[in-house]
Amino acid sequence: MSAAAEQQGPLALICGGGSLPLAVADLVAAGGRKVVLFPITGVAKPEDYAQRPHTWMRIAKYRAFERVAFAAGCHDLVLIGSMVRPSLWHLRFDWSSLAVLSHIAAAFAGGDNHLLSGIVRLLEERGFRVLGAHEVAPEILVPEGMLGRVQPNERDRADIKFGLDYLRATGQFDVGQAVVVANKHVLAVEAAEGTDQMLARVAEMRASGRVRAPTGSGVLVKAPKPTQDRRFDLPSIGPRTIEGVARAELAGVAVVAGSSIIAEAEKLVAAADQAKIFVIGTTTGTSP
Amino acid sequence: MSAAAEQQGPLALICGGGSLPLAVADLVAAGGRKVVLFPITGVAKPEDYAQRPHTWMRIAKYRAFERVAFAAGCHDLVLIGSMVRPSLWHLRFDWSSLAVLSHIAAAFAGGDNHLLSGIVRLLEERGFRVLGAHEVAPEILVPEGMLGRVQPNERDRADIKFGLDYLRATGQFDVGQAVVVANKHVLAVEAAEGTDQMLARVAEMRASGRVRAPTGSGVLVKAPKPTQDRRFDLPSIGPRTIEGVARAELAGVAVVAGSSIIAEAEKLVAAADQAKIFVIGTTTGTSP
Repeated sequence: MSAAAEQQGPLALICGGGSLPLAVADLVAAGGRKVVLFPITGVAKPEDYAQRPHTWMRIAKYRAFERVAFAAGCHDLVLIGSMVRPSLWHLRFDWSSLAVLSHIAAAFAGGDNHLLSGIVRLLEERGFRVLGAHEVAPEILVPEGMLGRVQPNERDRADIKFGLDYLRATGQFDVGQAVVVANKHVLAVEAAEGTDQMLARVAEMRASGRVRAPTGSGVLVKAPKPTQDRRFDLPSIGPRTIEGVARAELAGVAVVAGSSIIAEAEKLVAAADQAKIFVIGTTTGTSP
Repeated sequence: MSAAAEQQGPLALICGGGSLPLAVADLVAAGGRKVVLFPITGVAKPEDYAQRPHTWMRIAKYRAFERVAFAAGCHDLVLIGSMVRPSLWHLRFDWSSLAVLSHIAAAFAGGDNHLLSGIVRLLEERGFRVLGAHEVAPEILVPEGMLGRVQPNERDRADIKFGLDYLRATGQFDVGQAVVVANKHVLAVEAAEGTDQMLARVAEMRASGRVRAPTGSGVLVKAPKPTQDRRFDLPSIGPRTIEGVARAELAGVAVVAGSSIIAEAEKLVAAADQAKIFVIGTTTGTSP
């Protein structure tokens, strides 16, 4: 273990769904820092954690989480992975957690940003330092330029710019961070359904004839909300994103370089090259 | 027939899908003006037109439409009803129409506004005067205020304002004109899929637990695009909208008074009252 890693102490990783949490855990561990895993009940998959030491985190049992994390010497904490909003009124609370959770309940009234900000504020008040996953594992940030062998053409570049402009105009509303654009025509906008569902919708609209953009045209564009706390909930892509883009018969994927997270980069690039789909880390504002 | 109606001559009504075209036809005819119906092949339902004189309009056979319309003495023309984009490359063209249709083909490259503007420009160049449906049947415009007995509460009014602000911010991108908002959280945004499909998605997200907003909360908000030519494609609601809103378990519907079209108003209001759903014609900018 390096002296720096030892000084920082173990890292508490609160794990949502998807492949990203364990990818981050491996990168942090490879750097010599101990990681304590807290997969979230009902969100993370039990089979993904079967081979590793972990403690299930129940949102309604906040105090239990805190006890384990502090006992393990965790001061730093990262929230990572996809979150589906739990229903507060379907949970059985323990009484000692209830006072703490009132913060979270209040945060539920707003959008996703409010919810996450509320949780982060709570954790900080309780003594944790909340970091972004990219601060402990900078390798997960998407770099500028092509990630695979396929290149966007001029029409694709115009669609990327159109999509980025659209997302910039709507970011203040704390809505989804993704849009599908073909020939400067918005085919789908992500809100509560998530990126995978939105891509499935585009595939259905192609099948039904509602969308007539030629096969292999159209781009999935993802960008962070301007109002977003960059420590968490940066837009992310993974191999499953490429599967969805391939089924929707799009040309490629554009995300904002340095402000997007990639899960399983090698697997993603291999899948994209195989499907002849471009993946670009672009810069906002200027042409990609 | 009134002198004014006689002077205007017969009206050509190009009919898309849904119940609105025949509602407009009846209103215009009740005012004493002759209406010549041109349902669009593949979009309008044959059974809806079985009892009335009509001429099917094929987009690929534009000249045939023009011959019939001019022979009937039609100078004024209205485009009305829902349009699903036809696929130009699946159509069999007649050669005399091909030159005319190049305008439409070019318009297909842009969004829906571009498509409709292109068609309108073509019709005007060919000698028609293109009117909005609300200009020949002003009764179809949604008035200001409640349309039924149910009233929005304070939370609903805040959601309506949030939705109108969102649609105003995105209108310049020629994207859908509708959004579902619950507790100032955007649940769904309409793009190419249409309002009915978007409402079905909200119902699915409730069923799967992805959307946890309490039953009976959330509002469907529809507004015209700021860039829109107000003569056609104004946002519309009908009895089917109420069905979708009821299935999505929302509190109500808000549209912009004077800039939205209502099909079968009496049936819609009866369905809304029955389902305890509010329907409001609101004004943009200010609180509803």
